[in-house]
Amino acid sequence: MQKVYIGLIGLGTVGKSVAQILEKQKNRIAHRAGVEICIKKAIVRQMSKYENISIPLSTQVEDLLNDDEISIIVELAGGVEYPFEIAKLAFAQGKAFVSANKAMLAYHSDEILKLSNGLPLGFEASVCGGIPIIEVLRDSLVANDFVRFEGILNGTSNFVLTQMFENNQDFSQALSEAQRLGYAEADPSLDINGGDAGHKLIILARMAFGISLKPNDILIEGIEGIILEDMRVAYDLGYQIKLLAIAKKEGNELDLRVHLALIDKNKTLSHVKGVKNAISLQGDYVGEIFLSGLGAGGDATASAVIADLINIARLRQISPYPLPPFGFYAHNQDLHLKPYDEIQTQYYVRLLVLNQAGVLAKITSIFAQYGISVSEILQKETQEGVYIFLITHSAKEKKIFEVLSCLSKLECVLKNPYKIRIQ
Amino acid sequence: MQKVYIGLIGLGTVGKSVAQILEKQKNRIAHRAGVEICIKKAIVRQMSKYENISIPLSTQVEDLLNDDEISIIVELAGGVEYPFEIAKLAFAQGKAFVSANKAMLAYHSDEILKLSNGLPLGFEASVCGGIPIIEVLRDSLVANDFVRFEGILNGTSNFVLTQMFENNQDFSQALSEAQRLGYAEADPSLDINGGDAGHKLIILARMAFGISLKPNDILIEGIEGIILEDMRVAYDLGYQIKLLAIAKKEGNELDLRVHLALIDKNKTLSHVKGVKNAISLQGDYVGEIFLSGLGAGGDATASAVIADLINIARLRQISPYPLPPFGFYAHNQDLHLKPYDEIQTQYYVRLLVLNQAGVLAKITSIFAQYGISVSEILQKETQEGVYIFLITHSAKEKKIFEVLSCLSKLECVLKNPYKIRIQ
Repeated sequence: MQKVYIGLIGLGTVGKSVAQILEKQKNRIAHRAGVEICIKKAIVRQMSKYENISIPLSTQVEDLLNDDEISIIVELAGGVEYPFEIAKLAFAQGKAFVSANKAMLAYHSDEILKLSNGLPLGFEASVCGGIPIIEVLRDSLVANDFVRFEGILNGTSNFVLTQMFENNQDFSQALSEAQRLGYAEADPSLDINGGDAGHKLIILARMAFGISLKPNDILIEGIEGIILEDMRVAYDLGYQIKLLAIAKKEGNELDLRVHLALIDKNKTLSHVKGVKNAISLQGDYVGEIFLSGLGAGGDATASAVIADLINIARLRQISPYPLPPFGFYAHNQDLHLKPYDEIQTQYYVRLLVLNQAGVLAKITSIFAQYGISVSEILQKETQEGVYIFLITHSAKEKKIFEVLSCLSKLECVLKNPYKIRIQ
Repeated sequence: MQKVYIGLIGLGTVGKSVAQILEKQKNRIAHRAGVEICIKKAIVRQMSKYENISIPLSTQVEDLLNDDEISIIVELAGGVEYPFEIAKLAFAQGKAFVSANKAMLAYHSDEILKLSNGLPLGFEASVCGGIPIIEVLRDSLVANDFVRFEGILNGTSNFVLTQMFENNQDFSQALSEAQRLGYAEADPSLDINGGDAGHKLIILARMAFGISLKPNDILIEGIEGIILEDMRVAYDLGYQIKLLAIAKKEGNELDLRVHLALIDKNKTLSHVKGVKNAISLQGDYVGEIFLSGLGAGGDATASAVIADLINIARLRQISPYPLPPFGFYAHNQDLHLKPYDEIQTQYYVRLLVLNQAGVLAKITSIFAQYGISVSEILQKETQEGVYIFLITHSAKEKKIFEVLSCLSKLECVLKNPYKIRIQ
């Protein structure tokens, strides 16, 4: 049987899983790909850490790039500029490139697209781990234009939120638990601050709407600042709180953002728990399609990497590669980003105030002054002061910003007000 | 731009949607496929019924088969033997074949596979309408072996069950509503008796496990016989009732069946409502993947047909066609079907009995006699008699069959006992 040689960069959780599956399921994969897929060499930072591994190792990426027998480079190293350099060099050598690296793709998709120039490019593993969202957008739903999608795209933050809600833990306890279980990195910033979900949203928006953006262009907020009371109050009012990536197309305007959101308890997205990811898409012919699965973890992500490898192997005779890497859109020149202070939605607002007469009147009068009507108010006394939870009717982001900044200046308000949008 | 000509057989709901989308979205589809996809002629039974249609029509399928310019036959006519004959003739003429016909594929997949002989064969639309389950099994999850899957594969029956539960309707009212809304055919037998879901299960089992079976080989039950009380009682006990297609692999034994099942209210499948379909798959590396969407309807199904057409157009230079039609398995000789009287599960049993002292004791003693222990009993008095609802502990299908046949002979039992398996 013919052999296809790959060069692997990175032997972390995903790299190790890819190597193990390719070895253990040699026959299965050869049968399904029509060729044997063999790792010729893997690049690591420190060779001494991998003494028990049977794959030939090197610390020099040139060992892969200059090897004519290697036809596919699999980049599982992380980072942004280093893997981008490797992609450039791989394409320059006429090699296919497979990557699980959402950050690199979010910052460099334009250049990557140009450089690939008809060579195979696979990145199924970069968004939502094992969920085949890239292939579904590119091939399965190719007849559709998309109206909107909403997704839970980061497993770590979803684990933290689930852990808080189900086990009555505060944010820092839940985060420690995530770290203990290996779901969060030692530095979990990008998971917690929405950055990772933002990278994935940029990639999906490029595929679904043909818009070319960078992460800094869009509103990205994380889960920092949420407290257990928010989840309890939201639940009592009929909601779950999730970190959502949202895309909504209205005419030529595209609304793209990542932030916490209160979701109706009856919506399927609200039931997605733990490290799972999920996405709900609305196509103009197919209607709503919902997908969920493991968004992270070595084996689930390796399943996506190996799908890319097998599909590239199956179509290896064709040049140029017949599947458009970022889906079916050319750059959509007409579409522009909706300014995010024009977002209009309902808000959940939490205030910590002094336990004093007249405080509630003062607060509600400020909402009234800015023309925002309040639909529900709940109070809860604590040792620190009184929590006031408000749900507003639909209002503009700009107005809410003004109200909250006004509220934060009141003497009776003890901490900066905290808001969550309602989806 | 190059043109690919297709011949369409059938202008029903799906056929009409396909024709409309190909016409209305000409540019979109040409851009995504790299070629123009044009319907050269459509075959209908009666030409007089389609006077307003601009496509050239004929009643003679030979007009398509003998036209060398037509490279893809799209069969949306229904039936089993007629479309199978057409598939044979299409392949004999070197044409690609696309079909939404689950019944034909369930009965003739072996022959179809042999006859296609490297020509493109597309049937994404045959299972779960717009949900891309065929492509996901064939390409996206190609690294995995499957352990089990469970699905709601028939939209009409799911609509009837949802309608009963949410609007307090009895079975016949709910079915009439489905017919009024166009969700059920004038003759809805195959939707209601599980036959349609059975056809889809046969196709999915072939793809996921490589087993070649006919619908008559497996246990297929429908939703007839269910009453509103079943749904109410199940709900109070923490369950929803759904018509499930189930596949479970244990060693070399495959358990395949379609029947009503009580599903835990917390499972995502239990939230799938109305005409939606859904499937939950367990892969050995990817873990659980869940997909849901519209399982029927012209546009959603046409979305799948057009995806097949575009993907065939994209890969048209390659011969033989590089994607294995029924997925990656050769026939799996080692796997055999689990005899269904060996199913072991919990059961829900409903009895209608005389309102008499000692009846309950008589009934429970029969369960005890066969070694089946009962975990819950509920009673409800009605004008017809007393309903007794029982939940058993795990028991063998064979034993339950014996118990129910014994119970049905009691004078105090007014109707044949009704059982639903608990999933």
